[in-house]
Amino acid sequence: MRAVDKVLEARWVIPVEPHGAVLGNHAVALAGDTIVEILPITSAREKYTDAHRVELSEHALLPGLVNAHTHNPMTLMRGMADDLPLMTWLQQHIWPAEARVMGPEYVRDGVELAIAEMLRGGTTCCNENYFFPDVQAATYLRHGFRAVVGLPFIEFPSAWANSRDEYFDKNLAVHDEFKGEKLVSTSLAPHAPYTVADESFARIRMLSDQLDIPVHLHLHETAQEVEDSRKLHGMRPFARMQALGLIDERLIAVHMTQLTEAEIAACAKAGVSVVHCPESNLKLASGFCPAERLRGAGVNLAIGTDGCASNNDLDMFGETRTAALLAKGVSADASAFDAAFALQAATLNGARALGLGDRIGSIVPGKQADLVAVRMDALETQPVYNPVSQLAYATGRHQVSDVWIAGVRKVENGALCAIDTEALRAKAQAWRARIAAN
Amino acid sequence: MRAVDKVLEARWVIPVEPHGAVLGNHAVALAGDTIVEILPITSAREKYTDAHRVELSEHALLPGLVNAHTHNPMTLMRGMADDLPLMTWLQQHIWPAEARVMGPEYVRDGVELAIAEMLRGGTTCCNENYFFPDVQAATYLRHGFRAVVGLPFIEFPSAWANSRDEYFDKNLAVHDEFKGEKLVSTSLAPHAPYTVADESFARIRMLSDQLDIPVHLHLHETAQEVEDSRKLHGMRPFARMQALGLIDERLIAVHMTQLTEAEIAACAKAGVSVVHCPESNLKLASGFCPAERLRGAGVNLAIGTDGCASNNDLDMFGETRTAALLAKGVSADASAFDAAFALQAATLNGARALGLGDRIGSIVPGKQADLVAVRMDALETQPVYNPVSQLAYATGRHQVSDVWIAGVRKVENGALCAIDTEALRAKAQAWRARIAAN
Repeated sequence: MRAVDKVLEARWVIPVEPHGAVLGNHAVALAGDTIVEILPITSAREKYTDAHRVELSEHALLPGLVNAHTHNPMTLMRGMADDLPLMTWLQQHIWPAEARVMGPEYVRDGVELAIAEMLRGGTTCCNENYFFPDVQAATYLRHGFRAVVGLPFIEFPSAWANSRDEYFDKNLAVHDEFKGEKLVSTSLAPHAPYTVADESFARIRMLSDQLDIPVHLHLHETAQEVEDSRKLHGMRPFARMQALGLIDERLIAVHMTQLTEAEIAACAKAGVSVVHCPESNLKLASGFCPAERLRGAGVNLAIGTDGCASNNDLDMFGETRTAALLAKGVSADASAFDAAFALQAATLNGARALGLGDRIGSIVPGKQADLVAVRMDALETQPVYNPVSQLAYATGRHQVSDVWIAGVRKVENGALCAIDTEALRAKAQAWRARIAAN
Repeated sequence: MRAVDKVLEARWVIPVEPHGAVLGNHAVALAGDTIVEILPITSAREKYTDAHRVELSEHALLPGLVNAHTHNPMTLMRGMADDLPLMTWLQQHIWPAEARVMGPEYVRDGVELAIAEMLRGGTTCCNENYFFPDVQAATYLRHGFRAVVGLPFIEFPSAWANSRDEYFDKNLAVHDEFKGEKLVSTSLAPHAPYTVADESFARIRMLSDQLDIPVHLHLHETAQEVEDSRKLHGMRPFARMQALGLIDERLIAVHMTQLTEAEIAACAKAGVSVVHCPESNLKLASGFCPAERLRGAGVNLAIGTDGCASNNDLDMFGETRTAALLAKGVSADASAFDAAFALQAATLNGARALGLGDRIGSIVPGKQADLVAVRMDALETQPVYNPVSQLAYATGRHQVSDVWIAGVRKVENGALCAIDTEALRAKAQAWRARIAAN
């Protein structure tokens, strides 16, 4: 173990583990990329006299947020087409625009814009799902951002691959290329039951076992998807995934707006993680995920923003607040999805979904130092009765002041440490012209 | 008409009237407190050579947002008690806390904190509903903030009044005291059907006619309220209000989560305004207002944050986004409650609900210069395909840079012009100690 080189002193440390804990005037001691100790500030000053001290006297310090489902290159399509039914949106707007620009440069620049937005909003890890995973992985590594990069599979030719075999070959090459990286890992990302055949799912299931990596899948996003599957396959998509052996602890099932009690129980028993994307589900009128019932059944429930083309942001504070509010409305229970659980869903549960529960998601000795400081002295969060409540219900992402990933400072006093925002804005505007052109 | 003394030059002017309009590189010319003309920047520079120019080169300029339902003194109780069923929340937390602190000082300081938060978030007018309307009115006037102050009525003694007659006497005195003020006017604010008797409603109805002021009423907030009324009065609260003559164009009906088609049609026919408070309804699990059906029926639909004890903020950008997203989910139609309508609901419809539709709510010559500039160059709103979409779905209130009320600058480049935020924060923290004490 390296010596403690950094001590972050906060008005409140909110470690997420133990659940609901709020430690007033505590410090987090770091050695390199690792959390070593959480202790009172007064003790830290006596014990770690040589370490660099960071004073966060009006701040809550919490684990970095984990965005458990996103399509980050689409950040360049933010607000391109709104207020449209799903199929009109996809077929007349998103797909034609993607056809115009899809390629490594678009993916790289979109991911870069997303990294800047995520960092400024306190997100330190994302679960990515798009084409050109090689470019994504390289971009995340270049920026020192933690990501699980999905290896995309769909039964259609794309700019990424032309045939089933080419998808698998290229995806495996990406997996091999980035194996052993500390910040970036991979998952298998079959698009959805309605766009992937049984044979492909069988290969994905086998690879998931062999490589020991998660499967990241859109599942039961809409009632239409379920109905179509009943007609085509004689069963609901969930049952088909069960028959194919995919319902297990490696599955990251995204959306899940349509669920029977038996399906919820099966998720809990098998250890499936569900990623709730409340704002995407609302905006596309996809349905309501039974988030509180999933939580009650003991299912690991995480939160994702989905892509910016449908959301239209990567704001995990906002998404978590929406999740907490919506769960109360949908379950008709004001005590549902409480503030402490909301914070856990946005951090530790996301980490667990991604298979990173032992490395990130809470402020615990031995875990990676992915940390976020949030200013609580803004008038918008005054007065403070309970910092956990303020974080869940009143804090805006613009109150994030400082961010560390694996011990490296990424945001300092509200400013990105290593990203040129002017250049990024210019790039985004150039892509707008290309994407909108027709 | 005074001469044009100020010209605000914006990248985009979004006047709300005509509906959906986006005027690129336009200017708004002001004379004192009044909007005189909207014209291209190039023309404005030729025509108004002597006026003070304000360059808003990366900004959208829109009408100030109208928060159509709030209890602003409760801003001091933000996050005091969360995740609780309505009656536990009220009876065990809110009412005892109010009993400890209710009085002119608490109301004054709470309103002041709320004004600061509202201004920073682009809200320029609110529809207030609380005790001590005299103190509220004086505080809004002192800060030059536009407000309709509710004259509260409830069949219980309070720190404000001890008997029915005292409520009416004191309320009328407040109405008389502030009659003729330009920024502050009054409404009659009977609390709710379940806390106000028929005789009192009859007096309120009569006064509303005599004084020509709105009636601001919580109505059909929960299914329980409707059910209780059926048991007690043999009819739904809406029917009781109809029988009492209150369903008319002066009624501001707040919440309205329970509505039959006939009730919606009756609202449209009578010209009732409905204030939708989506986040409060979600957080307290009160039910879902059929916002899209109300809109479809032609009912004037406005948006309110409700009080900070239940929301927990006064963020009209956030509330409007939630309203738009939730309406799509509830109506199962992604094209429902589109971005342009969302912006109209948050501005012009709020103004109309308050009886101020001819004075504020849109950027139109002759209207008051209540204006908000929003920076669109933040990475979080890049790139910009459509500024109206960005405002509805991606903009955070922290992007508000400049605010004018009646032509007077209230926020300049993100900073409050005439409020000492340090002093305000200290006051809020002092109240926290008193409110939480027990």
